Amino acid sequence: MTDNKLSIDRPAIESLLTRRFFYAPSFGIYGGVAGLYDYGPTGTALQQNLINMWRQHFVIEEDMLEVDCSIMTPAEVLKTSGHVDKFADWMCKDTKSGDIFRADHLVEAVLEARLEGDVLARKLAGATIADASAAAAPADAKKDKKNKKKGGPVVATKLDDSVVAEYQNILAQIDNYDGEGLGELIARFDIRNPATGNEVTKPVEFNLMFDSSIGPTGQLKGYLRPETAQGQFLNFSRLLEFNNQKMPFASAMVGRSFRNEISPRQGLLRVREFTMAEIEHYVDPQNKDHPRFEEVADIKLSLLPGSVQLTGSTDTVQMTIRDAVAEGVIDNKTLGYFMGRIHLYLMSIGIKHELLRFRQHLNNEMAHYACDCWDAEIKNSYGWIECVGCADRSAYDLTVHSNRTNQKLCVRENLTEPHIYEKLVCEPNSKVFGPKLKRAAKPVLEHLESMSPADLSAVKDALASDGKATVTLAGTVADGTYEITAEMITIENKTITEYTREYTPNVIEPSFGIGRILYSLLEHSYSVRPDDEQRAVLSFNPAVAPFKCLILPLSNHASFKKPLLDVARRLRTNGVPARVDDAASVSIGRRYARNDELGTPFAITVDFDTAKDGTVTLRERDSTNQIRASIDEIVDMVKNLVAGSATWEDALSKYPAVSAAASD
Amino acid sequence: MTDNKLSIDRPAIESLLTRRFFYAPSFGIYGGVAGLYDYGPTGTALQQNLINMWRQHFVIEEDMLEVDCSIMTPAEVLKTSGHVDKFADWMCKDTKSGDIFRADHLVEAVLEARLEGDVLARKLAGATIADASAAAAPADAKKDKKNKKKGGPVVATKLDDSVVAEYQNILAQIDNYDGEGLGELIARFDIRNPATGNEVTKPVEFNLMFDSSIGPTGQLKGYLRPETAQGQFLNFSRLLEFNNQKMPFASAMVGRSFRNEISPRQGLLRVREFTMAEIEHYVDPQNKDHPRFEEVADIKLSLLPGSVQLTGSTDTVQMTIRDAVAEGVIDNKTLGYFMGRIHLYLMSIGIKHELLRFRQHLNNEMAHYACDCWDAEIKNSYGWIECVGCADRSAYDLTVHSNRTNQKLCVRENLTEPHIYEKLVCEPNSKVFGPKLKRAAKPVLEHLESMSPADLSAVKDALASDGKATVTLAGTVADGTYEITAEMITIENKTITEYTREYTPNVIEPSFGIGRILYSLLEHSYSVRPDDEQRAVLSFNPAVAPFKCLILPLSNHASFKKPLLDVARRLRTNGVPARVDDAASVSIGRRYARNDELGTPFAITVDFDTAKDGTVTLRERDSTNQIRASIDEIVDMVKNLVAGSATWEDALSKYPAVSAAASD
Repeated sequence: MTDNKLSIDRPAIESLLTRRFFYAPSFGIYGGVAGLYDYGPTGTALQQNLINMWRQHFVIEEDMLEVDCSIMTPAEVLKTSGHVDKFADWMCKDTKSGDIFRADHLVEAVLEARLEGDVLARKLAGATIADASAAAAPADAKKDKKNKKKGGPVVATKLDDSVVAEYQNILAQIDNYDGEGLGELIARFDIRNPATGNEVTKPVEFNLMFDSSIGPTGQLKGYLRPETAQGQFLNFSRLLEFNNQKMPFASAMVGRSFRNEISPRQGLLRVREFTMAEIEHYVDPQNKDHPRFEEVADIKLSLLPGSVQLTGSTDTVQMTIRDAVAEGVIDNKTLGYFMGRIHLYLMSIGIKHELLRFRQHLNNEMAHYACDCWDAEIKNSYGWIECVGCADRSAYDLTVHSNRTNQKLCVRENLTEPHIYEKLVCEPNSKVFGPKLKRAAKPVLEHLESMSPADLSAVKDALASDGKATVTLAGTVADGTYEITAEMITIENKTITEYTREYTPNVIEPSFGIGRILYSLLEHSYSVRPDDEQRAVLSFNPAVAPFKCLILPLSNHASFKKPLLDVARRLRTNGVPARVDDAASVSIGRRYARNDELGTPFAITVDFDTAKDGTVTLRERDSTNQIRASIDEIVDMVKNLVAGSATWEDALSKYPAVSAAASD
Repeated sequence: MTDNKLSIDRPAIESLLTRRFFYAPSFGIYGGVAGLYDYGPTGTALQQNLINMWRQHFVIEEDMLEVDCSIMTPAEVLKTSGHVDKFADWMCKDTKSGDIFRADHLVEAVLEARLEGDVLARKLAGATIADASAAAAPADAKKDKKNKKKGGPVVATKLDDSVVAEYQNILAQIDNYDGEGLGELIARFDIRNPATGNEVTKPVEFNLMFDSSIGPTGQLKGYLRPETAQGQFLNFSRLLEFNNQKMPFASAMVGRSFRNEISPRQGLLRVREFTMAEIEHYVDPQNKDHPRFEEVADIKLSLLPGSVQLTGSTDTVQMTIRDAVAEGVIDNKTLGYFMGRIHLYLMSIGIKHELLRFRQHLNNEMAHYACDCWDAEIKNSYGWIECVGCADRSAYDLTVHSNRTNQKLCVRENLTEPHIYEKLVCEPNSKVFGPKLKRAAKPVLEHLESMSPADLSAVKDALASDGKATVTLAGTVADGTYEITAEMITIENKTITEYTREYTPNVIEPSFGIGRILYSLLEHSYSVRPDDEQRAVLSFNPAVAPFKCLILPLSNHASFKKPLLDVARRLRTNGVPARVDDAASVSIGRRYARNDELGTPFAITVDFDTAKDGTVTLRERDSTNQIRASIDEIVDMVKNLVAGSATWEDALSKYPAVSAAASD
């Protein structure tokens, strides 16, 4: 068993991210609001690049129909979708102080603190630490003060081996407990508010949607959408028409959603307002193959199926998508296809291969609309974090909205070969059937027609053997029991030929939490220079990097100003975001270093040779190697490097290297 | 005087926009909600392209600091900004039916209907229609049924010439009336609910913000932001630091904002949820020049200053920005610079030059935070519509937030030359001042120090002539009147030398309503083929067009499938959004036509020659001209056409033209 959390100096990263304004708590000068963050210039550009690459990878390359729907949603829509009743977390309260907790987080934090205390006690006692226990204690536990506070101070108290095993088993499936289950855990293990030692109430449901009202009368209740999906479903018929009635197809949306979390924590990982990118792929339930399956079939994924988790294990299996589908680990090819595409997207932005796994949801943790779900989890210093959900929502949403509104949300398909089959059909003898049954005639016929083949067959048999049968109506305009005779009706097998088929599509939904992906990428991109751990570098690839090129003068000599502005102008009009750092009081080495912290991959330096021969140097962030060439050549090279049509190796082979300044 | 509205077949455009799913009412299958719209695939791509071009034009080319802040905003922030108290419209109610109206819209609609009735009456009487009256009646009045209903049925009733003039004068400055003024108009002109004939109540204020509450206790009140600006202001200090303390600079944000409009109408022009793009440019109030002013100085703008409007006229003046700033029509160079940049942006996306003007706000219509404002108004079939506001918010926002939070939101500037000046300074004689005044000593000294130079000079004179003076304190811990004598204090002129200067920047704010720009662009891009008015075309330029290239097979011949998918794949992996239209049952001409409605500028057709020699045709939407070349050449050409590195003329000169299919 390996560590469950990425071992990394989180306080140092967080300090960098705040200092360089990747993001910061919203309304900071007013004291901030938990779970709300503002992205600064670097974070915004990074987020935008992740979204642009997502659009290219999914919307454009797969020809998806992107839509942009309203956030404010009338209550009726979310009542129908099940969110008003079921989109809730379990909350409990300190019985005296009134402090509020999310019940599963409280249980998790307290049990984790006890396990840490156990590790400490065994250490003090000189005992060797079991590998299993080590997993429960974060590698960076000493630095992680906040985490400790959540579960209370870590007290060195040895636990029985059986208790350790029990705690670990519970933690491995904490998402599988409902309110009652969590209440039992709280009672059984005497879980209290770690800060006060007071008991907490039984868990109660708290709906996670923000509510408001629409219009001047205040009578139309609305919610802020908790996901972008519903807007896509409601437009299904328009989208199908836009797609010339062709199936399968996908819609997609990038936008803000809102969840009124009980106790937001873990920075960008659990927030009240977030940008998500969702795909709703509509597929024939009778054929969940995907035309492009072969393109991803041989990708090997790291899988953690539900069956494994229920044994208390978190060991992943490495399988090709082809094998996983063939062996039924992944339910169908469309689900497998999207898991492959998600994998490719995450690799392309720079997520580390070994820090990505796909975990199947357990039954109780599944959203109310889902029938199967795999999460792409990315490992960071908080643990394995769900960053992309890939759910099979079956026909749930389209069905409930269609039923509620009496609008068809389905596909009519012209069959290439007609569907021919035998069916028992009722044919009333109009001269006898109507006159005998009078006002009951219509409901009796409808009743017969709605019978199952077996029941109708029994009626047919009764008519054949006894010459009569009885029919009992309930819930009609003419309830009662009626006798029908062989002369009133004929029930016969007929050959039916259907030229069209009508069905409600199933929906496969890859749903991306952009903020979680972004934060994980920040951790995966972070390192310090081997020779100086004060000098941090964010090694974004050029496509992802917030700013592509830094432009700086060697000093504040007057002759540098014009070429500096010239280079900046030329890069910017070519769509290359470029920053100037002309703080002449700061050494060139420190200016390189502070832009390494922003992840800027390239730097152009204007120096005394520029005035003489029109050349500048170009520095690459990770290697800190530099080349020298004319302004024209360097600007062109940067454009190509950023567009991905040249690599740094190309640049090195084409232009002479120069030794870095002594200060770098 | 020219028509106030663009003469265009709006019902035909609206039909196209709905049919081809540019946008549609949100929650349509639930009956929809006024003022909420969903963008379909075409509208979403169009919107995204407008935003991308905006980012390139403003954020990247001008090196602005883009941020992405929370929508959910605690009440305290918007209380401080003035929105809780002042961000309201005037609403009145039908006294019997309870129907709710926005007061200014009601007055406007009723007076416009009466003016239309007057025109009709004069027509019936055979009188010539005064030019001035024509302006009040929309050119497409016959088709515009909805508009008529708003103000009631148009009844042919002749008005006195003086009444017509009065109505027109009121309509020209309708935005200048407050609640009381609107109430007077309603009373004076007996304005009633047009639908019922009932009287309406006096206008009352209705706050336009959607409210909600944050967190599980429900005790933290929040609002959905009505503008993106506040988030930018609250981050001012972080942004200044990010910019290495350099001034001037700009922040920018693209995002959703919300306004709970009383009675949304006019489609995308007045909605409850909208995407805006806002720039906050921070500038030294003592120097509102702009380093790049010269780049726009010679652009000629169409201006409608406040002074002209107050005469009841809407005649614009054509002036270069240089002249307008020099003559004080536009207040300063930074404001002028941004008006020029706004003009260039709107031209680049395809807004028609003659349908753009800049109108200065009248005093009463100005937002509570603004001290000057010019709207870029675009003329469409609804009239001249505010699409971009360009306001000088002075130091209002930074000042109120700083005062409320006690956090400095200002710039400290090292002066290149120290600021040396004379100042009256108080120096108490500590042996006498304290003992005599006791607990009043501190407040008395503070009072003296906060006096204006003139008042303090009067005290100095009194001490010199009478040997004493009196000081009255109010609102302190020691209120009362105190006598001070010459022996207690010295008041003298001293030379002060300051090496730094501290100031609160002023803010110039260009604020773009993306939906309004998008709708106006749709109208400006719309036309019908000269030979067939059933065939509509949206002539977007390639950068703006939702889909860049259509790919279609001549028929459903099996040999077409592979080259079709090949071309699609190659365009898409190169980032060119391409749609396939392979509905073989639809003639090629009709397929061209239905994609002209989407504004797709280019179409590649696979035909029988493709199988023979690997060539395809490329059609340009506006001219319907076609060329033929190899797939490689055509794919390359489309990439260049879309990137703007080639024109259709280049294509025509390089490759042989082919005659269009007979059906096109």
